[in-house]
Amino acid sequence: MVQTPLKKLNELYRLKSEETLRDFFTFLSLQSISSEPDYKPEMMRCAEWLKTYIEKIGLTCELWPTSGNPTLFASWMEAGPDKPTFLIYNHYDVQPVDPLSEWLSPPFEPTIRNGEIYARGAQDNKGQCFYVLQGIKILLERDQRLPINIKLVIEGEEECGSHGITDILNERQEQLKADYLAIVDLGMKSSTQPALTLGLRGITTMDVEFIGANTDMHSGEHGGIAYNPIHALIETLAKLRDSSGKVSVPGFYDEVVALDPAELAQLAIDFSAGDYENLFAAKPYGGEKSFSPLERGWLRPTLEINGITGGYSGKGFKTVIPAKASAKISCRLVPNQNPEIIAERVATFIKANAPAGVETVVTLHPGGGLPMRSPASSKVVKAFSKAFEEVFEVPCQYILAGGSIPVTAKLALASNSEVVLFGLGLADDRIHAPNEHFGIDRLEKGALTMARGIELLGVDSANP
Amino acid sequence: MVQTPLKKLNELYRLKSEETLRDFFTFLSLQSISSEPDYKPEMMRCAEWLKTYIEKIGLTCELWPTSGNPTLFASWMEAGPDKPTFLIYNHYDVQPVDPLSEWLSPPFEPTIRNGEIYARGAQDNKGQCFYVLQGIKILLERDQRLPINIKLVIEGEEECGSHGITDILNERQEQLKADYLAIVDLGMKSSTQPALTLGLRGITTMDVEFIGANTDMHSGEHGGIAYNPIHALIETLAKLRDSSGKVSVPGFYDEVVALDPAELAQLAIDFSAGDYENLFAAKPYGGEKSFSPLERGWLRPTLEINGITGGYSGKGFKTVIPAKASAKISCRLVPNQNPEIIAERVATFIKANAPAGVETVVTLHPGGGLPMRSPASSKVVKAFSKAFEEVFEVPCQYILAGGSIPVTAKLALASNSEVVLFGLGLADDRIHAPNEHFGIDRLEKGALTMARGIELLGVDSANP
Repeated sequence: MVQTPLKKLNELYRLKSEETLRDFFTFLSLQSISSEPDYKPEMMRCAEWLKTYIEKIGLTCELWPTSGNPTLFASWMEAGPDKPTFLIYNHYDVQPVDPLSEWLSPPFEPTIRNGEIYARGAQDNKGQCFYVLQGIKILLERDQRLPINIKLVIEGEEECGSHGITDILNERQEQLKADYLAIVDLGMKSSTQPALTLGLRGITTMDVEFIGANTDMHSGEHGGIAYNPIHALIETLAKLRDSSGKVSVPGFYDEVVALDPAELAQLAIDFSAGDYENLFAAKPYGGEKSFSPLERGWLRPTLEINGITGGYSGKGFKTVIPAKASAKISCRLVPNQNPEIIAERVATFIKANAPAGVETVVTLHPGGGLPMRSPASSKVVKAFSKAFEEVFEVPCQYILAGGSIPVTAKLALASNSEVVLFGLGLADDRIHAPNEHFGIDRLEKGALTMARGIELLGVDSANP
Repeated sequence: MVQTPLKKLNELYRLKSEETLRDFFTFLSLQSISSEPDYKPEMMRCAEWLKTYIEKIGLTCELWPTSGNPTLFASWMEAGPDKPTFLIYNHYDVQPVDPLSEWLSPPFEPTIRNGEIYARGAQDNKGQCFYVLQGIKILLERDQRLPINIKLVIEGEEECGSHGITDILNERQEQLKADYLAIVDLGMKSSTQPALTLGLRGITTMDVEFIGANTDMHSGEHGGIAYNPIHALIETLAKLRDSSGKVSVPGFYDEVVALDPAELAQLAIDFSAGDYENLFAAKPYGGEKSFSPLERGWLRPTLEINGITGGYSGKGFKTVIPAKASAKISCRLVPNQNPEIIAERVATFIKANAPAGVETVVTLHPGGGLPMRSPASSKVVKAFSKAFEEVFEVPCQYILAGGSIPVTAKLALASNSEVVLFGLGLADDRIHAPNEHFGIDRLEKGALTMARGIELLGVDSANP
């Protein structure tokens, strides 16, 4: 009984796979970089294209205006009020592309090499969004209807803080109302091992600036006299972590609780230091030495400097003491940690540790994300676990994710739904980096998993 | 007797001061940035213009080819072999101009505001070079001859290591041979207080790069796992100085000797912390806390980070763990410290303190400069001390300089001459920074001081 619907769906998918790839490439070619204001017109073009595409599949679709880029809201509600409603979240915006020179093919000209599609957003999140749409499309092509009601929310500011969608969640509660919510922006361990993600880390970000004199100064005349803002910056930021990799900010770990052993036992946390080194050509020597790599990535909060700049970094040498130096810092958070409180503690620590003779400005960014976890016992977790098992022909793993999707907790609250998080991302897809890519095979498996998950959610558990 | 020649020279100068300013502006408009390869053609245009200008004054002039930009060599040797020969050093290259947005008028369009000429190189060193030429010019206009033999060396790579001139000093020894050498690239305490500089700090520079993974990585997936190269860089470089401002590199101070009390007594070292703060709107809290600001700037070696970069520093936020992070470091050196030895000690310390999990590359730059000091008793020091006193009508101070002119010691050796260092620079001329400037009054006083110093060097001390 299980193989029949999957086989039929797969035939339907393959029949149109070339057309699907052409449409996907159009989606990828739209330069929807949300964090760079210059790309605003491209953001709109991308939203409009996606709306038209979704309507062609057979859903109604509207653009919800926000303070920033619009959120797409699509739905198919003809299953009727006695059937469950399933809300699916994706985003159509992508990360910036620099350093551009390191891309082997241009980031907005999708290129296939060895079965992988290379483009900015190929995985995060246009690839994952696109197989969601394909899953719905093949169900509608087969049956001209869906077994349950579907709602899609596809936002345009996930890569820059999700401010727009966050602001409108309250007023859109009625439209968002659902029984289940899937956040399809996650990953799995390998291309043959599917996984459901039962938790995300939260995030908070800030800019730090150290200001010395009112002008750049000559390091001969002023070297050893003025406090060089670069030194002030690095000496202060170096205190943020101790030699064991622990974050030194007082109270940073106060709210962190150890995971329940039963929960921990469910997790596929067997990823070794060797695995990591093989995969990334990087040694897993960062963070807290007293935890294994995956514990550090999943169960522990972190503090990372994501950018630093000051003085002269061009060709040659300039013997300057710069007027200022600055850095960008993010913290990843685990359950019970509040983004605003942690940010305040970090800012207080930085100011308290800054040396005399320089001015310190810490700018906290609004809109951090809460961490979240979902129980393995929920119906939506079980339905997609089974769908994955059918498509990949192996048991589905339960994992956590180190990344953050700040809107998750807020969307779960606004829609009043049970959450599951998953995706077909792989750790070496190079999301947020040059040469991001996603497999053609994963696009297909993603579509089939979505279709089967929706079907299984429609099965009355009392009357399967 | 003293006033007569000065007054005549001053009349001669003022007669042509408008023409002089026009010629100076032409010199300043030539974009001779030596550290940026793109400006090579402008370097050549500048050298050719200067050669023509010097020949018009009445000296012979040639361009000495080097591995980089040519060195100008000019001379007037008609005083005869029984008269002393005086070699004067300047440079025609200038620093880069970024950040361009902070210039109130374009760096290569000289503009006068409140009696100050604003342009890149207005002081360092085109301004100082130009008054040297004016001093010779008015003597030749008055007498059609000079009392001593004059040689000029004007190099084109002072701002990027003086490699070209350094390489040819040995083969040019015969032409460079002189009794006295003046390095005219220094400063004085105020516009009414002239000074001779009896010592310079040496310098050594290096690039430091920390390399993590082979690609930028997502800080959610990899935060707390990979060693972030920015953290590796700042944690390592923060160890270079301790909390008292002392450089922590083993052996860094080994060769430093305290200045002889008699020598120290000759120095005008009364510059206070308050003076410094008023002048630069920066607090003098950098460097070794156990020394006064001017002791730190003159008598102590330093280590400064002149540039740092890593990760994302653009608009918005990018949650990246970069593949690499880098910094540029310079050390200023005092007598007995050797640039190569100090550089090696710093590099060894950085490598020894780098954390596991990142690769560390330290690139030492060749051509550091030796520190130097000259005795107050030499004839050339005495001649220019008197010339300054005549022109400024106050006693000349003896000072040291925190900056470095790496070619000084090498040129003194090659020419086998007694050295004096001076200049009419002021600490707030903003050399190496936006809005560099030099006073029209200082151009005139510089010319008169040069003319009188040359005359006084021609007076036989046995037969004045």
